[in-house]
Amino acid sequence: MPEDPYGIRPGEFAVSPPERFDAELYFIGRIRTPWKTRDECPKNARESEAVCTIEVDPRWAQALTGIETCTHLLVLYWMDRARRDLVLQAPRHYGAPRGTFALRSPVRPNPIGLARVRLVRREGAALVVRGLDCLDGTPLLDIKPDRCAHTPAADGA
Amino acid sequence: MPEDPYGIRPGEFAVSPPERFDAELYFIGRIRTPWKTRDECPKNARESEAVCTIEVDPRWAQALTGIETCTHLLVLYWMDRARRDLVLQAPRHYGAPRGTFALRSPVRPNPIGLARVRLVRREGAALVVRGLDCLDGTPLLDIKPDRCAHTPAADGA
Repeated sequence: MPEDPYGIRPGEFAVSPPERFDAELYFIGRIRTPWKTRDECPKNARESEAVCTIEVDPRWAQALTGIETCTHLLVLYWMDRARRDLVLQAPRHYGAPRGTFALRSPVRPNPIGLARVRLVRREGAALVVRGLDCLDGTPLLDIKPDRCAHTPAADGA
Repeated sequence: MPEDPYGIRPGEFAVSPPERFDAELYFIGRIRTPWKTRDECPKNARESEAVCTIEVDPRWAQALTGIETCTHLLVLYWMDRARRDLVLQAPRHYGAPRGTFALRSPVRPNPIGLARVRLVRREGAALVVRGLDCLDGTPLLDIKPDRCAHTPAADGA
């Protein structure tokens, strides 16, 4: 069982993980937020108006071309401190255990986090955004357009 | 360069991939759709009212507990046939090349697909849904609640 800061509560249930992994990810940048511990994080992104920064690694920076046409983005990140083997979880605010796929908990077989953010501005290979709730230093996996102008900017940028 | 069915168009740009991967994924099930080739897939999920099935592996089936309280789900899947090294892409319907993070193309450093679906019904370890546009057999990565009743069902299921 992996080392983890979460523990198991009454009603929770862990399965044995598969013998092997099936696919591999690159960390393509880091997310900078004001929150250094899980207790400090906002309960959900809607509660957070804090300005955060998404730093994209230089290798992938050109992939931001045209992103200024978007007002809202979907950000995928890796919740690397979470255990992955729980199928039933008992969050404190629920009366009964609930399945992992019916929860937004970071504890899940593939701990991919998802946030819808507002793009405040781009600064080179960094995006300044509002609407994140993850830990400072969280590895970045992907950025997708959510709401954008449908045509690229006139200068092709 | 990986074998791929996409090729590079004028204006597109590929980077050399990182030397190593940073994290690993489990495939936790498969998505069943009517589409066997990429050309057959709907252009986007909003165009598709087709009923599709998400098959969750028995190991993780208990993680569906309580999901019947949700009307809408977020489905993450792995677009395993896409190349991963393009930072600029020139889709046919755009006038100028555009950055990968400003596109919903399956070609991206981490080819994680994301769909918002309506839950029609649960059948054991399978979910019958509307709103997917991916290929038949696509590996499943995660299911997250999007819109749900806030309390578990009275029977705790």
